Amino acid sequence: MSVDLETDVKKLIHEMGTKARRAGRQLAVIPPGAKNKALLLMADRLVSSTERLQSENAKDLDRAEKSGLSGAMVDRLRLTDARIAAMAQGIREIAALPDPVGEVTEMQTRPNGLRIARMRAPLGVVGMIFESRPNVTADAAALCMKSGNAVILRGGSEAIFSNLAIAEILTAAAAESGIPEGVIQLVPTVDRAAVGEMLTASEFIDVIIPRGGRSLIERVALEARIPVLKHLDGNCTVYVDEFADLESAERIVLNSKTHRTGVCNAAETLLVHAAVAQEFVPQICSKLLEHNVEIRGCDRTRELFADCTAATDEDWSAEYLDLIIAMRIVDSFDDAVEFINHYGSHHTESIVTKDYGRSMEFVRAIDSACVHVNCSTRFSDGFEYGLGAEIGISTDKLHARGPVGLKELTTEKWVVLGEGQIRT
Amino acid sequence: MSVDLETDVKKLIHEMGTKARRAGRQLAVIPPGAKNKALLLMADRLVSSTERLQSENAKDLDRAEKSGLSGAMVDRLRLTDARIAAMAQGIREIAALPDPVGEVTEMQTRPNGLRIARMRAPLGVVGMIFESRPNVTADAAALCMKSGNAVILRGGSEAIFSNLAIAEILTAAAAESGIPEGVIQLVPTVDRAAVGEMLTASEFIDVIIPRGGRSLIERVALEARIPVLKHLDGNCTVYVDEFADLESAERIVLNSKTHRTGVCNAAETLLVHAAVAQEFVPQICSKLLEHNVEIRGCDRTRELFADCTAATDEDWSAEYLDLIIAMRIVDSFDDAVEFINHYGSHHTESIVTKDYGRSMEFVRAIDSACVHVNCSTRFSDGFEYGLGAEIGISTDKLHARGPVGLKELTTEKWVVLGEGQIRT
Repeated sequence: MSVDLETDVKKLIHEMGTKARRAGRQLAVIPPGAKNKALLLMADRLVSSTERLQSENAKDLDRAEKSGLSGAMVDRLRLTDARIAAMAQGIREIAALPDPVGEVTEMQTRPNGLRIARMRAPLGVVGMIFESRPNVTADAAALCMKSGNAVILRGGSEAIFSNLAIAEILTAAAAESGIPEGVIQLVPTVDRAAVGEMLTASEFIDVIIPRGGRSLIERVALEARIPVLKHLDGNCTVYVDEFADLESAERIVLNSKTHRTGVCNAAETLLVHAAVAQEFVPQICSKLLEHNVEIRGCDRTRELFADCTAATDEDWSAEYLDLIIAMRIVDSFDDAVEFINHYGSHHTESIVTKDYGRSMEFVRAIDSACVHVNCSTRFSDGFEYGLGAEIGISTDKLHARGPVGLKELTTEKWVVLGEGQIRT
Repeated sequence: MSVDLETDVKKLIHEMGTKARRAGRQLAVIPPGAKNKALLLMADRLVSSTERLQSENAKDLDRAEKSGLSGAMVDRLRLTDARIAAMAQGIREIAALPDPVGEVTEMQTRPNGLRIARMRAPLGVVGMIFESRPNVTADAAALCMKSGNAVILRGGSEAIFSNLAIAEILTAAAAESGIPEGVIQLVPTVDRAAVGEMLTASEFIDVIIPRGGRSLIERVALEARIPVLKHLDGNCTVYVDEFADLESAERIVLNSKTHRTGVCNAAETLLVHAAVAQEFVPQICSKLLEHNVEIRGCDRTRELFADCTAATDEDWSAEYLDLIIAMRIVDSFDDAVEFINHYGSHHTESIVTKDYGRSMEFVRAIDSACVHVNCSTRFSDGFEYGLGAEIGISTDKLHARGPVGLKELTTEKWVVLGEGQIRT
């Protein structure tokens, strides 16, 4: 497929959308076995196409180097043997997950004899807009197909040759397995107008899922006339309560902050109850410095530990994605809850406490997608939660909150089984 | 409260939103018993304030008559003794429903000992924008409060005095029962700019629910920068399959079309399989005419029954809300499914068939909120489905599809209970 920069994008998205809508309706009634067979073939074909993938990938790498992208960015684009094998393995794992479509829950028989239930059904067509790593093409295609959805993929221009090659291999394998044509489509142009067209194609696309940097997600949220499943910041907080086991608190804080820094479930803020601050603040600060973490503290923190900079108001809501932590002493449990609900990004928060009542109250009162008790914030992801693969973590409240896995890529419909009943 | 037409609406919505956000967070942790006690007092106070309600209502009726509103429209505004009693009874029924907040599902213990579950939680703040009948003020306030949400209500200008009186009575009773101030608020101005402010107040409002005519709902969908739970048209279809019991089909068609016409779950379209058309079309057409239903048929329908007008392409997607039906003969089950998915409004469809396979395939293949087998389309509502009261019927696919009851006014959060686990 050639990369045509002059495509009439409106016509293009309309054609792709029409095809996706039809394909989605056909896919909705295809049994799990047929979808899984196709997924396994897709995985095999990726591995057996390693050479082709790497030769297309080389074009992207070449362009990236010429355009002066940083070494780290270039590396994220690279399709090594191991990364291609991992992509294939990811698809096999998705094939092995339970099929969400058709699950029936809450069936009841009404007094008039009607049997009424909720039945899980595909959303229809997913519009996936992403940047950078080409493996997202494979992940998203597999998750959408398994959940009975057609998908229109729009990857970043920096990976266009790699993405096209992956999509073509997946599409061919799907077709060979009897999956309707149009279930997996990648927008074959780098024209940014295509994103705008997708965001308003409400006739063809049921939900938009953006994955990438803040500017991409903000643009999508602003322009979309279609529901969006998004996550903006992950400003996660650990709160060390007055009844905390301080040894456990130290391990949880260090793990939440330093296990990986560039991820949305890393801790960015630490709250310490005043009753344990005298003992805990110097202890944790020394440890954080040992791990090369820069500390930005409130005034009271700085009184207890001099070697930290003064936090500004921006620090309390910052997502550093780096070896930096904002630290604040709070006078009460209620202050901690209020602080988190106000400054946090509603992603993941963790309390460290031995007090039963506090743990239950924290779980009820914190308005976040993931509320943890006595464990690291780093656990909030689809694999750790036992959902298998995820397409992202939603900090929205409607439809999907937290990891977006197969279930979150579906909807429900009401099914009513009657024997001639009419309403009187 | 006076009706100030000159209010600075931006400031007003900001103040109401700030108050609602705070109140919502407080309400989220209030136990079911306290909410139910308040609901019962609210119901009692409505009844004991009948005189006051009717004197405020008289101002609206007076304005309505002077402005030349139709008699039917004026009647919809009227708060009779019976309607006030019914409003109160509705609130008592909501008090008696199970509380959705705090329900824990899918709890599992992971290999590392973490206990992980989904917990149902309030959405936060609901923005309710509605027209006409003042009873919506009471319904919406009670449903939102029971589901742990604060609500900002914006009723139609034609009912402003009635709505203000209802809201004041409910707010006073709630406050007397210890419910946080700000849980129930009604926008005290008829300035339409207030709607625009609500639709962009994403900092304070988590979801907008419009209830009213098509123009209101379209404006909301277009302008909102907040998720919207809406339903546009109810163009419901009955499909009479070749394996239908034709006697049952007749009763179901007549009930779906004529039981009530001005409602979204009334049938607007009838599809008949060609194999039974010769027998069924003349039979059902005669009956429909007896019920004063105007028939708009396809060419083949008109060959079998002369006394009907020719349907145009607009008829297949029309929501008549009247004694009119569009009728079409289809050559196959697949044609029926394709026709419904293409022209329907994804609200409610019903198949009449004795064939097991057809019934199961219809349920899988139809892309609508409610899929019925061998029963009237008129059953698709919250009470008939056993949910108790509803705030509307959503034809959206995300978050809530079908009747929007208490559960649909909540979200879920992930709860993770640990004992010091860190990620390695």
